[in-house]
Amino acid sequence: MISRITVHKSRLVLGMAALGVLTAPGLALAQDAPEMLLQSNANILWTLIAAILVMFMQAGFACVECGFTRAKNAGNILMKNYLDFSAGAIAFFLVGFGLMFGADVSGVFGSSGFALGGTDSTTADGQWTLTFWFFQSVFAATAATIVSGAVAERTKFASYIVLSIIITGFIYPISGHWAWGSLWLGDAGAGWLENLGFADFAGSTVVHSVGAWVGLAGAMVLGPRLGKYSADGTPRAIPGHNIPLAALGVFILWFGWFGFNPGSTTTADGTIGYIAVNTSLCAAAGTLGAMLTVWLKYGKPDPSMTMNGALAGLVAITAGCYELAPLGAIGLGIVAGIVCVFSVEFLDKVLKIDDPVGAISVHGVCGALGTLAVGLLAAPGYGDLTGLFYGGSINQLFVQALGVAVVFAWAFGTGFIAFTVVKAVMGVRATKEEETKGLDISEHGMEGYNGFQIFTVE
Amino acid sequence: MISRITVHKSRLVLGMAALGVLTAPGLALAQDAPEMLLQSNANILWTLIAAILVMFMQAGFACVECGFTRAKNAGNILMKNYLDFSAGAIAFFLVGFGLMFGADVSGVFGSSGFALGGTDSTTADGQWTLTFWFFQSVFAATAATIVSGAVAERTKFASYIVLSIIITGFIYPISGHWAWGSLWLGDAGAGWLENLGFADFAGSTVVHSVGAWVGLAGAMVLGPRLGKYSADGTPRAIPGHNIPLAALGVFILWFGWFGFNPGSTTTADGTIGYIAVNTSLCAAAGTLGAMLTVWLKYGKPDPSMTMNGALAGLVAITAGCYELAPLGAIGLGIVAGIVCVFSVEFLDKVLKIDDPVGAISVHGVCGALGTLAVGLLAAPGYGDLTGLFYGGSINQLFVQALGVAVVFAWAFGTGFIAFTVVKAVMGVRATKEEETKGLDISEHGMEGYNGFQIFTVE
Amino acid sequence: MISRITVHKSRLVLGMAALGVLTAPGLALAQDAPEMLLQSNANILWTLIAAILVMFMQAGFACVECGFTRAKNAGNILMKNYLDFSAGAIAFFLVGFGLMFGADVSGVFGSSGFALGGTDSTTADGQWTLTFWFFQSVFAATAATIVSGAVAERTKFASYIVLSIIITGFIYPISGHWAWGSLWLGDAGAGWLENLGFADFAGSTVVHSVGAWVGLAGAMVLGPRLGKYSADGTPRAIPGHNIPLAALGVFILWFGWFGFNPGSTTTADGTIGYIAVNTSLCAAAGTLGAMLTVWLKYGKPDPSMTMNGALAGLVAITAGCYELAPLGAIGLGIVAGIVCVFSVEFLDKVLKIDDPVGAISVHGVCGALGTLAVGLLAAPGYGDLTGLFYGGSINQLFVQALGVAVVFAWAFGTGFIAFTVVKAVMGVRATKEEETKGLDISEHGMEGYNGFQIFTVE
Repeated sequence: MISRITVHKSRLVLGMAALGVLTAPGLALAQDAPEMLLQSNANILWTLIAAILVMFMQAGFACVECGFTRAKNAGNILMKNYLDFSAGAIAFFLVGFGLMFGADVSGVFGSSGFALGGTDSTTADGQWTLTFWFFQSVFAATAATIVSGAVAERTKFASYIVLSIIITGFIYPISGHWAWGSLWLGDAGAGWLENLGFADFAGSTVVHSVGAWVGLAGAMVLGPRLGKYSADGTPRAIPGHNIPLAALGVFILWFGWFGFNPGSTTTADGTIGYIAVNTSLCAAAGTLGAMLTVWLKYGKPDPSMTMNGALAGLVAITAGCYELAPLGAIGLGIVAGIVCVFSVEFLDKVLKIDDPVGAISVHGVCGALGTLAVGLLAAPGYGDLTGLFYGGSINQLFVQALGVAVVFAWAFGTGFIAFTVVKAVMGVRATKEEETKGLDISEHGMEGYNGFQIFTVE
Repeated sequence: MISRITVHKSRLVLGMAALGVLTAPGLALAQDAPEMLLQSNANILWTLIAAILVMFMQAGFACVECGFTRAKNAGNILMKNYLDFSAGAIAFFLVGFGLMFGADVSGVFGSSGFALGGTDSTTADGQWTLTFWFFQSVFAATAATIVSGAVAERTKFASYIVLSIIITGFIYPISGHWAWGSLWLGDAGAGWLENLGFADFAGSTVVHSVGAWVGLAGAMVLGPRLGKYSADGTPRAIPGHNIPLAALGVFILWFGWFGFNPGSTTTADGTIGYIAVNTSLCAAAGTLGAMLTVWLKYGKPDPSMTMNGALAGLVAITAGCYELAPLGAIGLGIVAGIVCVFSVEFLDKVLKIDDPVGAISVHGVCGALGTLAVGLLAAPGYGDLTGLFYGGSINQLFVQALGVAVVFAWAFGTGFIAFTVVKAVMGVRATKEEETKGLDISEHGMEGYNGFQIFTVE
Repeated sequence: MISRITVHKSRLVLGMAALGVLTAPGLALAQDAPEMLLQSNANILWTLIAAILVMFMQAGFACVECGFTRAKNAGNILMKNYLDFSAGAIAFFLVGFGLMFGADVSGVFGSSGFALGGTDSTTADGQWTLTFWFFQSVFAATAATIVSGAVAERTKFASYIVLSIIITGFIYPISGHWAWGSLWLGDAGAGWLENLGFADFAGSTVVHSVGAWVGLAGAMVLGPRLGKYSADGTPRAIPGHNIPLAALGVFILWFGWFGFNPGSTTTADGTIGYIAVNTSLCAAAGTLGAMLTVWLKYGKPDPSMTMNGALAGLVAITAGCYELAPLGAIGLGIVAGIVCVFSVEFLDKVLKIDDPVGAISVHGVCGALGTLAVGLLAAPGYGDLTGLFYGGSINQLFVQALGVAVVFAWAFGTGFIAFTVVKAVMGVRATKEEETKGLDISEHGMEGYNGFQIFTVE
């Protein structure tokens, strides 16, 4: 295990440059230099704080997914979020982290660090490893929880737990290794995609699209909710039951994203501020883009779609938050907001895939969009790359497209297999009666809002 | 653009003193001194974290405003909060920041930094500028979102968006320049009020009162909600629909305020802890003051008023959080809690101004109170000033009163003009039918709580 | 008042070791060494951020306690949470802090620092004192708020306020002094339990069990809610009215716990990351342990119990978060989740004590469990101790058991006296009519959800 500071060098050229004399030969990596220790402590501090913010995104996803679906399934979807984070964290601890960040095998998967074996918390290296694990564990949970939205209101709970563990322990770490394998062990852990120069700073593709493409596979295997499509295929809107809860959830996600994106430096350097600027402006523009699109298209500014526009902007900027300039972030956000609205409609009306909360469009389509945008909008004076629009080479765009495509193939393919196998072995869909009655009563023996009068005909 | 560290010197005498040898001539501002770089990184880190906390206050305002109003307008008020932060951030990026912090013109407005033109994120100055912008952008959004509470449940959505942009892009930045203009460019940006010695550390007047006085203007132009006053002028209470949501919102605001006040050092020095102490004690005392007042006055401890008391304490301490001692903060909080209750009643019963969530009393009246309190309660051993109660000069109190008065005149005046012009051009109030049916259905084509049975007669 | 850095040495051996040359004789504690100042600022920064996170746990407790009880008492329980934090903070400021951390008298209580008298915020010592006070004040509020859950839905509001002040100002600080007295003044403040070697890093016993044992006493003095037990003593389930709110609350608590546990270093060193790892894994395992237990026992995975399992894991790891290895944390979490389910059933069915939200089992029983676990599971390579399972001496386990027992005796005993005296003096229980109608109407003159149709027969 090499030093954290060397590892970061591969990713954070700017960050290290900013450290100036701290990395000059005479002082470099000398554990006895107080400045190095202080920066090292600051890096752990920042990475921990960022991880805590990202952890809180679990609450955001829970509120969004619960609020955008029906009251009769409220407890069920919350349970899925709890399971994603609890079963998921343990699966990632035992297996996933090692597959994602361990010693590289052929650029395809990692092979060490399972259960953090051999980590000694009394050394600086061990302390960093444990902090880094925590940061990565909350990212893994994010990927898993995106799936629960796409397959909401109809999936058997026991089957979902199995699928969640497969995602966090296997599907997410493997493609994650391709793009981010070097982040712990440096060159010794590097995956094939990052060796080609694929840039996805905080995970538009690595985290968000992976979750969405698995969710797409799941939604296809499961089929739509009862009553979602009439006999002739006309989609019916099934409104969410608690828009204030969902609105709070989107704000929580926006808040947590300031850990997700700036925290992905894992270094307390001077770049974290502008990454937050890009993140916030892109989300703001996504909100506006989606609101105006839906307003023009359907005549009224719909809150659910507007909030999904904020998320679309956040997902889109995740890949390029370190590479874009603020004006580029605004432009990207507007496009992401518009694309999100059309994508939701396309899935709903043309493909007839039932995604109750819009997760596939927000996290999948806008994740791909944001990843490609790095090849176009990476700006001089920000980050390490130069995009096509600023006179850079088209090669970067090709690499970005390759990454988007192979991660789609991997996540959708393995997701489809996983859902299909689980379906064959233990069943994956609730019965008609269970679904009609609501999963809260049938799966969990409880009600989300005991005492409230709720319309039962839905 | 001068160095951030020099800029801070003008404001944060104590902070810089604490930096001891770091600012001694031999080392001062030497970019090659590792200690300076570490402190610089720490300042960016702290300012970013504080900004993230303040951003989350948007969620708090959304919950408070939604919970304290009726279910039929829940989606509408949430949309306003989303728009304040999204359209607002972009307006502040393009125009507001430059007017507020750019190169000063006659002490009245700033004139550079629009769209952060020329900022280079690879330099320490550029990194600070971008971080500072983010911190200030979430403050601007706070001012805007206060207005939405005061004009809730009856404002046309499209008109509100226009007004929100005017507030964040123009009204707030101009008076902000007067008091805080020097924070980015130092003396080159200084406004006339700060040159007189006006002290408003984190914005009781600059942020909170500005929002409230614009809201007051809006509430007057709009008139009260249908059914709020009977024919003979007797006010009717229109209770909020979701007190748990509002209670969560107040806690979120309290939480975010620890970014708002301590973060306004924008320096990771040793003063941030006691600023948090003052903030928390004043809020606690405000809670008690309001609760006991309402209990004695009306016979029962009303939760909505008690929670507004917490906010009253938070608003009041914002100006003097760096100047007061803890006992002074407790005293101020008790007074703010009491004043808040009487102010709400005075607006409601005497002035007959319909402020659905109490925003004008909490943010306006208690903001003025807190700003004046600096002149009285600034304590030796804390901050830079000495208040009248500790033997200081009365001049500070005069300057504080001047600041309160001119900012009232500016914000109320321009707010009144803006609401009046928008009313003339595009209309500012929902129709009777829209208001009766609820803005969610009429403006947004949705319901906040689909499936729940809600009394329709309201 | 001695230097903060010396104080920490007694607790944070690892942290100080990591500081390497910074604490070498030549530099040690020299205020003119820039590295010392930077680390000092970093410690204040981290302690403040952690305190802010812990403060937000008040919102989590409010959501959990409100969601797990009935709609007719929603406003009342929220008010109790507000009072715990507001009256509590002021009681802790005036009295509690001095009793807990002031100059020690016979190992039993502290005797200085009341109202932070003599603190000068312009010195490094004063700045640390104020920051440390804020951190401890949010811990005190946590202990108090646990009580409100155990005595929910039937306690007179005015009586509760008095009891809350007694807890924060007297009961909690005294036992807290025994275990943590040295944290402010070093040896001069040390209590008798810590002198014996009692280890409770972040307060499984000091904070959580104290709150729970006082709550147990309160629940016994009050008796069960009307209708909770039939004439023959059969318990009836009284389901919570808003499970999504409670689920959000548990996530907020989980989030805030990353301030509670890692923040208890009060030093920005390299250990904070692995403390977060232990915290998260134990909570994840607790979630799984409780869910599987309730699933096997009752046939369905109940969300309320599963979420309580997460809290059980969090409480259990609090004592040993600095001492356990990650695998030990997982093991402890599973046991805590299982124990929590059986404990809830035992209280409900055998002891017939009505604890509406399960606070006694989660915070009391699992707090004791976690405190004992330090004697068993403290791992080499983590923290300072070696547990029995790793070949350590059994003495530590005895000391842990002693601490658990005496704190139980103190908190339950004084809690019982306090509730009994308050009952005699002013009454402690709402009347039958008030309780049936709901405390919101009868005590506060309001409704939690105005406009919603809620079943009135409960």
